[in-house]
Amino acid sequence: MAKMVHSCIRVLDDARSIDWYKAAFDLDVADQLDFDGFRLTYLSNARTGFELELTRNKDRTAPYDLGDGYGHLAVVVESADAQHADMSAKGMEVGNLVDFAPGGDLVARFFFATDPDGYKIEVIQKGGRFN
Amino acid sequence: MAKMVHSCIRVLDDARSIDWYKAAFDLDVADQLDFDGFRLTYLSNARTGFELELTRNKDRTAPYDLGDGYGHLAVVVESADAQHADMSAKGMEVGNLVDFAPGGDLVARFFFATDPDGYKIEVIQKGGRFN
Repeated sequence: MAKMVHSCIRVLDDARSIDWYKAAFDLDVADQLDFDGFRLTYLSNARTGFELELTRNKDRTAPYDLGDGYGHLAVVVESADAQHADMSAKGMEVGNLVDFAPGGDLVARFFFATDPDGYKIEVIQKGGRFN
Repeated sequence: MAKMVHSCIRVLDDARSIDWYKAAFDLDVADQLDFDGFRLTYLSNARTGFELELTRNKDRTAPYDLGDGYGHLAVVVESADAQHADMSAKGMEVGNLVDFAPGGDLVARFFFATDPDGYKIEVIQKGGRFN
């Protein structure tokens, strides 16, 4: 049985991304592997064994084409409102808080944040199936 | 402290993707939320609390543009060779097995598989920092 262990995104400036994910979600550098043409950084925290892998291709200068296939990484927080206020105060790009209740019942209270390369992160308040 | 809970990809045919991820990695449908314009499916198994979210936008017929930013989801298996043989026997698209040892020491034995929408999944043999 396979175990999901990480999701990988390519980033232009890994130092910038490391700072952003630390400030936004308290993710730390679990490991960093530096090679000739690229560097891999693994971000995680004590809440999960799953990691976010950042790939920096050292010769890449043009912004990555994010396409329209990949959606987002999702994180759960205790309070979406407090997280939204904190990220806003830090000058980070955040969308509106949404109560998603298409059938009348609340499925999730969430917002989307945008990381330095433009990747979306769904920030979901703990509750229901999101724990 | 934020907890990473899922990664979301958009897929053209969620039934096809569900079958593929079950056959490839023994992921099961943990939940499915059906709305007017789209359907969300959460895949997981007993090895992790992290989920893969599939979004099917019902009016989408053109293949998604995967761009060059998003990298891959990674899974760990007991034996990369056995997993490679199993997926090959099932007619799934898999790349070559690689011993990644850029500095001389083995970092990982792995291969890449391609799902029905073209997303890459890195299949890593358990060992070292990949557990």
